[in-house]
Amino acid sequence: MYVPPRTSLRVWPMLCGIRVINAEKSEFNEDQAACGKLCIRRCEFGIEEHQEWLTVCPEEFLTGHYWALFDGHGGPAAAILAANTLHSCLRRQLEAVVEGMIAPQPPMHLSGRCVCPSDPQFVEEKGIQAEDLVIGALENAFQECDDVIGRELEASGQVGGCTALVAVFLQGKLYVANAGDSRAILVRRHEIRQLSSEFTPETERQRIQQLAFTYPELLAGEFTRLEFPRRLKGDDLGQKVLFRDHHMRGWSYKRVEKSDLKYPLIHGQGRQARLLGTLAVSRGLGDHQLRVLDTDIQLKPFLLSIPQVTVLDVHQLAVQEEDVVVMATDGLWDVLSNEQVALLVRSFLTGNQKDDPHRFSELAKMLIHNTQGKDNGATGEGQVSYDDVSVFVIPLHSQAQEGSGH
Amino acid sequence: MYVPPRTSLRVWPMLCGIRVINAEKSEFNEDQAACGKLCIRRCEFGIEEHQEWLTVCPEEFLTGHYWALFDGHGGPAAAILAANTLHSCLRRQLEAVVEGMIAPQPPMHLSGRCVCPSDPQFVEEKGIQAEDLVIGALENAFQECDDVIGRELEASGQVGGCTALVAVFLQGKLYVANAGDSRAILVRRHEIRQLSSEFTPETERQRIQQLAFTYPELLAGEFTRLEFPRRLKGDDLGQKVLFRDHHMRGWSYKRVEKSDLKYPLIHGQGRQARLLGTLAVSRGLGDHQLRVLDTDIQLKPFLLSIPQVTVLDVHQLAVQEEDVVVMATDGLWDVLSNEQVALLVRSFLTGNQKDDPHRFSELAKMLIHNTQGKDNGATGEGQVSYDDVSVFVIPLHSQAQEGSGH
Repeated sequence: MYVPPRTSLRVWPMLCGIRVINAEKSEFNEDQAACGKLCIRRCEFGIEEHQEWLTVCPEEFLTGHYWALFDGHGGPAAAILAANTLHSCLRRQLEAVVEGMIAPQPPMHLSGRCVCPSDPQFVEEKGIQAEDLVIGALENAFQECDDVIGRELEASGQVGGCTALVAVFLQGKLYVANAGDSRAILVRRHEIRQLSSEFTPETERQRIQQLAFTYPELLAGEFTRLEFPRRLKGDDLGQKVLFRDHHMRGWSYKRVEKSDLKYPLIHGQGRQARLLGTLAVSRGLGDHQLRVLDTDIQLKPFLLSIPQVTVLDVHQLAVQEEDVVVMATDGLWDVLSNEQVALLVRSFLTGNQKDDPHRFSELAKMLIHNTQGKDNGATGEGQVSYDDVSVFVIPLHSQAQEGSGH
Repeated sequence: MYVPPRTSLRVWPMLCGIRVINAEKSEFNEDQAACGKLCIRRCEFGIEEHQEWLTVCPEEFLTGHYWALFDGHGGPAAAILAANTLHSCLRRQLEAVVEGMIAPQPPMHLSGRCVCPSDPQFVEEKGIQAEDLVIGALENAFQECDDVIGRELEASGQVGGCTALVAVFLQGKLYVANAGDSRAILVRRHEIRQLSSEFTPETERQRIQQLAFTYPELLAGEFTRLEFPRRLKGDDLGQKVLFRDHHMRGWSYKRVEKSDLKYPLIHGQGRQARLLGTLAVSRGLGDHQLRVLDTDIQLKPFLLSIPQVTVLDVHQLAVQEEDVVVMATDGLWDVLSNEQVALLVRSFLTGNQKDDPHRFSELAKMLIHNTQGKDNGATGEGQVSYDDVSVFVIPLHSQAQEGSGH
């Protein structure tokens, strides 16, 4: 994790077995980060069915690694809470299913008791594997963390929200969970693979329009659910214009009525696209109190805190020394494409000493440098990002060598 | 289109410019098919804004081809209505936007009038192309047809539903629209490409569970929304078992309560999976009156009539003589994989005369023959389909040569 100049860097104490590094580029920086070791304790079952946690082993049982980026909006409060909380939620969720994760196949009953002789076959037919329990734990941890943030913000009178991009290395696999517009990519010598998708008002248009169709009261008569190429005005009345509704991936024409002149539920294009004129992302944590300016119209019903999770089987990759995962907030991806980042990564790692322990930090630093408008030989473009930028570079080789830690 | 033995074949009269062939393998056959030329008339605009259809050209303006398969359930009524109706709905939808389709870029206003000087730029930024109007027309035609079927079934006191798989060749592109569990694949010498996805209670689990979460009254207290590896029973009470809810792609464990013992909203595995214990598909046309046996619980709220549309740019394919699209109902795909079908297609077309005008019909016949348990050299398996089977084989070469017909 590289923290650019003008930055106060605090290394936090060991928090629930997680080492958290928090970076603040300026007093207005809303990016937050966390990383550390993830220690999952084993909670053994007793013989009695209803007595769940008989013994809690004091020592770590399964260990993994955790990296997380949170891009805040409306203040850094939600991002800070998420950086302090999400790993604990995840650890708790994983500990609740760890017995299932270490079995050859997750058992139908967590206790291992077989109620039906064919229970293993039912689990087999559904194709349920240990990785599905980690995916479920990530999904539930994001939801739990969102609830915590909602309570904490309300209790402290704070506001705000954040995106969340999390990578977890566990039992030989890398899990990438994303809710928002940050991005993780895998860069290898001959491969670039995007490990997450962005969730914005544009990419989630149909889900959002569907919600407004189901609950029209959410728009309070102030917005139109329909999408048009631009906001309509009086001159368009009575004309047939391009539009699409929630059920359409394609476009059609409709005759413009007065209600079509309202402000659109989703408005703007690309970086400028906004949900209810307010928010640039459609998934994330927080925003429980967020309302459209000067109205009572809430944003939260349209937002999902559920991440999309992708799984990379690192042990099957035949990982090379230069294989890395680059995680970054939208500040990086707004000015550099996946291909440009891969080019920078490859040329940097080819030119630098393999035994330099700081080379991945230097690489993260160089990537951020490339968003600050300095002309660079590799891209030759010198684009400028005016947004906060945070980057993790995760070398896969050391992860793969460390193994599962079980 | 091959119609197997024991079949009465009716060639229907020219219906709205479409030639419809209807195949009934037996009196219980619920598969229906339609194909023909699609003739889209041009409706010119006058100068006055509010006077829309000044001149309707009596002649066809844009022509395409149309193939459709409908797999009925609960009787053939819906499938027959769909085979008689969907092409008319599609023609009407296409005629309503054809002016936009033939422009270099669909104009913001169908009249071509430019209200804002930057309107073309707004359309450009949204990336709206002629093909998006065809996709929108297909989406709207399926909805319109579903409404017609609902009215007709009610008026005639009939019941039933059907899946719909439609292929349309228009302006050099093949559009495949699918609602249900039929499938279309492209077979070329060195490529197999699936052109549709199946929509079943399993593939649409999250959408269906989400609906039950939003409207719990739809389950009338008789079903549980949650998914478990098998139906739970009394012995599972109080145990922690594998489950997932609408927001989860992964799995977790939950302690079984009494309400979890209810019949599951989606039950069974693969071919046996059923929605509300009743239906094997989650998209299609009809079923407006369908209820769970001996209850008032409706299926229709969980069903979508909207198809997923994929586009194949045939003019960019460098099409060869042997390149075909195979469309078939689930009866074929239940016993033959994409790869097995491709193997049969390639070996058949290599071994047969290029100038035989019936070879594609013979190929369709041979594919169906391979589902009837006859041992075959190519697959060597001799599997049996007990379902109705319908197959279209569309040679792409003749389509590509014919061009847009504009």
